[in-house]
Amino acid sequence: MAGVKLLGFWASPFGYRVIWTLKLKGINYEYIEEDLRNKSQLLLHHNPVHKKIPVLLHGDKAVAESLVILEYIEETWPENPLLPTDAYERAMARFWINFGESKSATFFQFFKSAAGEEQEKAIKETVEILKIIEEQSLGEKKFFGGEAIGLVDIAFGWLAYWFEGTEEAVGTKLLNSNTFPRLHAWIQNFKQVPVIKENS
Amino acid sequence: MAGVKLLGFWASPFGYRVIWTLKLKGINYEYIEEDLRNKSQLLLHHNPVHKKIPVLLHGDKAVAESLVILEYIEETWPENPLLPTDAYERAMARFWINFGESKSATFFQFFKSAAGEEQEKAIKETVEILKIIEEQSLGEKKFFGGEAIGLVDIAFGWLAYWFEGTEEAVGTKLLNSNTFPRLHAWIQNFKQVPVIKENS
Repeated sequence: MAGVKLLGFWASPFGYRVIWTLKLKGINYEYIEEDLRNKSQLLLHHNPVHKKIPVLLHGDKAVAESLVILEYIEETWPENPLLPTDAYERAMARFWINFGESKSATFFQFFKSAAGEEQEKAIKETVEILKIIEEQSLGEKKFFGGEAIGLVDIAFGWLAYWFEGTEEAVGTKLLNSNTFPRLHAWIQNFKQVPVIKENS
Repeated sequence: MAGVKLLGFWASPFGYRVIWTLKLKGINYEYIEEDLRNKSQLLLHHNPVHKKIPVLLHGDKAVAESLVILEYIEETWPENPLLPTDAYERAMARFWINFGESKSATFFQFFKSAAGEEQEKAIKETVEILKIIEEQSLGEKKFFGGEAIGLVDIAFGWLAYWFEGTEEAVGTKLLNSNTFPRLHAWIQNFKQVPVIKENS
């Protein structure tokens, strides 16, 4: 099997998406930490368009962009599937992953509002998005895809590990067991998956 | 086979992505034009999250978001494939589709600059993106995926039909045979595909 390497950065939720996916698949890989203030030639060569981590190197092939990497891993190593096999269920998974990405600007506004910029508006919009995720995507399920962890959980994984720190920085607690009981329960379920717990 | 319906809007490049894909696959469908100023209950019911067209109805299933619909069609009707079979080539296709989407805000700024808003900056950034698409994605190929039309071409299809009108509105011609010879040739190749020519 061609060797697998991952260019990452310790604090990146995008890098963690790939780490969790590789670990859940049981794929051995070499992790290479990037110095983002002084990017390596390896990174610039393999991701000339975005110049960002994560980048997955698989033999002589390089794949960039976390969500593209996740689909590549799923297709290349089909064992321990992280997307449903049914085309419609896969479409629903991609819809919600896509939804999260399309709202990233709002979450970033919430993060930036720690500095006091339009905080009220940022909080309102963030709550609306969390409400849609809680009610329309997660529902009563343990994980987004049902009983087992999948790519939607991994894509939303930053909610479990990075969102709380953001709330602390902003000084507002939005997500707790009263406001978003299902998302709050999901965070506990997510963090209890051994691979996630051991790699976070 | 369960019936296929498409909720669309005549001027939407996102709707056209789905029309082209259905036609290239040879799938019969019923087209339902939406009045976007007075959205139908059908649209609101089937896309409660975004409330936007296009929405594909397949029997009792509904799929929203053009790129999610394209992958759903590709998986459900594998004949006349529009994504490569090789996992790495598929990742590259998704990388470029993803790139185009991630830069949509810049293209929208270019469009808005018709009203004089920060036109110089918008033009500069748009040219940079076109340069990346021309040099790093398209290269010397006839279509983005090689000799045949595929999902990357369809995702970039608005460049062939909507970009010229935008340039006219802004009053600046950015894309021509001198500035972007490969993209210019690709537009001609794209428009010559019978399904595209007959549905535009």
